[in-house]
Amino acid sequence: MSDPSWLREPENDRTIEENWLFRLRRERFRSRLTGKAHDYYVMHLADAVNVIALTPDRRVVLVRQFRAGSNADSLETPGGLLEPGEAPALAGARELLEETGYAGEPAIVLGSWWANPSILSSRITTILITGASRMLDPKLDENEELSVELMPVDAIPEAIQRGKIDHALAVGGLLLWLLRDRTAGDQGEGG
Amino acid sequence: MSDPSWLREPENDRTIEENWLFRLRRERFRSRLTGKAHDYYVMHLADAVNVIALTPDRRVVLVRQFRAGSNADSLETPGGLLEPGEAPALAGARELLEETGYAGEPAIVLGSWWANPSILSSRITTILITGASRMLDPKLDENEELSVELMPVDAIPEAIQRGKIDHALAVGGLLLWLLRDRTAGDQGEGG
Repeated sequence: MSDPSWLREPENDRTIEENWLFRLRRERFRSRLTGKAHDYYVMHLADAVNVIALTPDRRVVLVRQFRAGSNADSLETPGGLLEPGEAPALAGARELLEETGYAGEPAIVLGSWWANPSILSSRITTILITGASRMLDPKLDENEELSVELMPVDAIPEAIQRGKIDHALAVGGLLLWLLRDRTAGDQGEGG
Repeated sequence: MSDPSWLREPENDRTIEENWLFRLRRERFRSRLTGKAHDYYVMHLADAVNVIALTPDRRVVLVRQFRAGSNADSLETPGGLLEPGEAPALAGARELLEETGYAGEPAIVLGSWWANPSILSSRITTILITGASRMLDPKLDENEELSVELMPVDAIPEAIQRGKIDHALAVGGLLLWLLRDRTAGDQGEGG
């Protein structure tokens, strides 16, 4: 990766808010091209993982939960924030088990992106867990309420098209997997 | 859309930060299921648009620009925030022209998602503009520095796979378009 075109000047940073979830900062950068300075807002947030869990009969394990940003319940792939030092594949298997009680084969990493690099510091990794089946009761965090729904793989594209699944990060992961699936043959069975 | 499973209690809101870009609030909701209250952080941010602009020789117009969240330069589809009351299709054509100098056919809306409903209030809409060609010089905002790069459509999947394009929201829009393209025949030529 080449050097960024703007250079950080940390002596001018300001922390606006710091809590259990994130640190919001105003950070000054200076353009290497023009020499001009600009203050950017950055929300420092843990990296996240997004889990596509596929059952042996080719259904995807989804969760429905309340999201405050949309003030609505959202149908999504399971997932959550990484604990410090935790690898996405392990975090994903942990989140899947906690949120849904499902477990399966060792995770395959499908891709990793910046969640929204204009304002967030976090990356999101999408993993695939095949052979998923229900092993335990879900073990939810306090204040976490969600229900598990299984959707046949073939119904996913229409659910995205009709806005039944409309969390951009979940959609992006599902589309990546569907496109690989169609391009390279059925990778969902491989484990 | 059914009622959300948590109910807003706005009398307990707190505004943490308010600036030209966003309003960060702590908002209290109460579960209809358990009656328990929880404070969620919500960053209220304008909705955004993400533009897939295709030239007559089937190249996609991309921009490379600095992103403070990743502290790196990012190769992305053009786009930006909607002005109050502005429709995504018009905002996208405006952003495309401002950022790249390109214009084309009237925009087709491909999809609209919550950008990250766990923390952001904003939706992002992906539009397709075919027949794009360079009409003007870019007209950048102050502090906006970007360069335009054209990429053949066929090179996009590999660029995503190799992390050359790794802004989740840009990737999601491109994957949606690629999947439609492959599923329903070549929609990129239709205008």
